[in-house]
Amino acid sequence: MEIRAIDHVAMVVPDLDAALGVYERLLGATVENRETLEAQGVEAAMLRAGDARLELICPLDQESGVARFLAARGPGMHHVALQVEDVTAALDELESVGARLIDSRPRRGLGDHEVAFVHPESLHGVLVEVVSRG
Amino acid sequence: MEIRAIDHVAMVVPDLDAALGVYERLLGATVENRETLEAQGVEAAMLRAGDARLELICPLDQESGVARFLAARGPGMHHVALQVEDVTAALDELESVGARLIDSRPRRGLGDHEVAFVHPESLHGVLVEVVSRG
Repeated sequence: MEIRAIDHVAMVVPDLDAALGVYERLLGATVENRETLEAQGVEAAMLRAGDARLELICPLDQESGVARFLAARGPGMHHVALQVEDVTAALDELESVGARLIDSRPRRGLGDHEVAFVHPESLHGVLVEVVSRG
Repeated sequence: MEIRAIDHVAMVVPDLDAALGVYERLLGATVENRETLEAQGVEAAMLRAGDARLELICPLDQESGVARFLAARGPGMHHVALQVEDVTAALDELESVGARLIDSRPRRGLGDHEVAFVHPESLHGVLVEVVSRG
């Protein structure tokens, strides 16, 4: 799979406004985008600091996967997103080398980009997103 | 603080060789650097995939902070490293805006770069490293 770069790192937080305030103040980050993603049951914000993107994710209810993550592990890093040219091609390649996929086809993520997730079982507990900005 | 980019994301794994094999096979990553960091009680490898750097960290004993992290949370993401021009200046700025620091002065990390850690309490459970490659 041809990875271009780390696109962003995402953190789960219990209070989006409070976390945004902290990330803005401590890291000098600015909000690039903020959206409610109903299908995932989260509100998310993409922060920018230089070329770094940091995503903050907050569950909207107690049912979503992100809510269960927060309840089980507390706030912290949730996933790392790797930028690829073509998400469909990346999924094909991942599958061909034996990766277990959460998404067998791309779906729309924050900012309307194509994204898909690889199961953390495949990468020693690390949830990896592949994303295209192309 | 002037952040340039995400320098790398680091994961804790229980078996470095096994994890390297998986990351090479699934992500097409290659090893840029591998070192034992006695002071931190870990063996670490920096992987490269395109412009992305992914660090794998494995505890050498049961005493290190990384060993305790692995015992408590299992394998997974450990920290995100943000690239800055000057680690000392970044620490001064972080302290001036109220961040709690783990390292009040830079120390030597993997690849002999200057690094320092911010306490996860300051960033909603996220362990942040600042690193200079300058």
